[in-house]
Amino acid sequence: MGKHIGKQSAIFENDIYILETASTVGPKEGEGPLRNYFDVILDDESFGEKTWEKAESKMIKTNMELVLEKAKLKFKDIDYIYAGDLLNQTSGSNIAIKDFNIPYFGIFGACSTIGEAMALASINIESGIGKNILVGASSHFCTAEKQFRFPLGLGNQRPLTSTWTVTGACAFIISDIKSRVKIKGITTGKIVDFGIKDANNMGSAMAPAAADVIINNLKDFNIQPDYYDMIFTGDLGYIGKELTIELVKEAGYDISKNYTDCGIEIFDKNTQDTHSGGSGCACSGTTFAGMIYDKLKNKELKRILFVPTGALMSTISIQQGESIGGIAHAIMIESL
Amino acid sequence: MGKHIGKQSAIFENDIYILETASTVGPKEGEGPLRNYFDVILDDESFGEKTWEKAESKMIKTNMELVLEKAKLKFKDIDYIYAGDLLNQTSGSNIAIKDFNIPYFGIFGACSTIGEAMALASINIESGIGKNILVGASSHFCTAEKQFRFPLGLGNQRPLTSTWTVTGACAFIISDIKSRVKIKGITTGKIVDFGIKDANNMGSAMAPAAADVIINNLKDFNIQPDYYDMIFTGDLGYIGKELTIELVKEAGYDISKNYTDCGIEIFDKNTQDTHSGGSGCACSGTTFAGMIYDKLKNKELKRILFVPTGALMSTISIQQGESIGGIAHAIMIESL
Repeated sequence: MGKHIGKQSAIFENDIYILETASTVGPKEGEGPLRNYFDVILDDESFGEKTWEKAESKMIKTNMELVLEKAKLKFKDIDYIYAGDLLNQTSGSNIAIKDFNIPYFGIFGACSTIGEAMALASINIESGIGKNILVGASSHFCTAEKQFRFPLGLGNQRPLTSTWTVTGACAFIISDIKSRVKIKGITTGKIVDFGIKDANNMGSAMAPAAADVIINNLKDFNIQPDYYDMIFTGDLGYIGKELTIELVKEAGYDISKNYTDCGIEIFDKNTQDTHSGGSGCACSGTTFAGMIYDKLKNKELKRILFVPTGALMSTISIQQGESIGGIAHAIMIESL
Repeated sequence: MGKHIGKQSAIFENDIYILETASTVGPKEGEGPLRNYFDVILDDESFGEKTWEKAESKMIKTNMELVLEKAKLKFKDIDYIYAGDLLNQTSGSNIAIKDFNIPYFGIFGACSTIGEAMALASINIESGIGKNILVGASSHFCTAEKQFRFPLGLGNQRPLTSTWTVTGACAFIISDIKSRVKIKGITTGKIVDFGIKDANNMGSAMAPAAADVIINNLKDFNIQPDYYDMIFTGDLGYIGKELTIELVKEAGYDISKNYTDCGIEIFDKNTQDTHSGGSGCACSGTTFAGMIYDKLKNKELKRILFVPTGALMSTISIQQGESIGGIAHAIMIESL
């Protein structure tokens, strides 16, 4: 049986592993600093499809097939899928997996979706019910910009606070089959809203939630930041990262030495012109599937806190003057 | 530890209860046959707010506060919230719960959302981590019609296959605290797509998924339909119900004698002009919170299968010619 720890954390008694990961990314991500870690780099954003949305679904589908192949599993070995994306009614994932014939829990945590999926899959395995669970999340620069901001053809100028939505799909197998990467515990995020209303400043909207879940993880487990080799937030970018360090410092913890954000890692600041960095479900998802998982397997990283972050907004909520709540889910991961 | 049963079911070892329920509905639902079962009936669809979306969020929020009051619990007693709705990026729920300060898993299962939430909350309690979990789902006729179909001001004629989105919010406490209503097991749905592309014929789009999960529940547990006093699907309406009976019959099971659909129960066919019946997350959610839960507590019903049903579509997926996949989650519930 798992145990609830402190205010919002849980520790698992069962051994829960990340058996395998896969990542598929767009061409821009494939030119970035993490290029050698990705499994598949697309030649173009449309992936041979007539629409960007169809391209996103195809990317999710082929990437899930890939992670099964890498794990030497068949679809019949998978008990559940937990997946989601940024499209209205998570239609990217729904269309991608509909031929897989596997019990499916659709989730929405904005760009924190892969963290939410990892937490829910771990809880499921801890319950004794699931054995092999496929989790996935995706985002696509073109579908996201079109849906949340401006038509791409408008060539709108992007403010310096904006981040660049990562085109990519990630998929992991969470399993009771032993691997070298183990999920030890989770700290589930609550919505934190500091009143940001600018859909082009999501780093600031999400940083309070990231800081809150990191602080509560440290408090609930009574540990200091140096317990972790690294803390990775999801897609706060440069502005959000600095805010997070400040907010965590106010609670008495210094994470400035062993903390980075996947939105900073995935693009090159000097040559790739993404302003505040990368964002989207795939930002943390493909960075984990690629670089972070690799370093955990190789024991370059021994203990990490993986904190995918999400900005909870829709065009309707923004138009009606609602502020953007942030959410972040923290996953404690160890190398064996 | 829970047990995986058959192809897509699970049975719980721990005692998992539905401790309390609450429902808030709109004026049309308050004139329907179930009027005496609802906790709150609104005077109008706007609930004193400037927009229908804000009204939906307020309804979710006040209804969650109500279920806690009814259960004599405080927010600090709640370990997790699992909730969702039909609005883009589930913004109804996100805005409603942001001041509650409780770890939150956002989910999207279209109109099957409350079934998904009950399944996930049960798995969580089975894992030993959560003790009291708040689940909720909502829909609103005006926000849904505006988002998925036509502006209401257009006064568009509705085809006879169409259903009427229920305005309402439901909330339940899933708990290890004993009550007279127990969740025994679940059958988790997979996406089933028979190629329907008409957003005004969702009963036909969802019926294959409903039939699939009912058939698999019966097979996995090796039981006959008369094991249940009643089987309730979510929001298939008249057309979807007939299709479901036919499809289940093809697998060798006759559910015609002890099966109804919440979309048929919630409105009066002769006087309320809803064509094929009710739909929306709140259709099954408030019917359960009201009538079904009441009858379970009073032992008028002893064993039921509750099967919320969802149509996975977005305006973009419809416009791009994608068909509407259905999904349904079955919850086995017993009266003690």
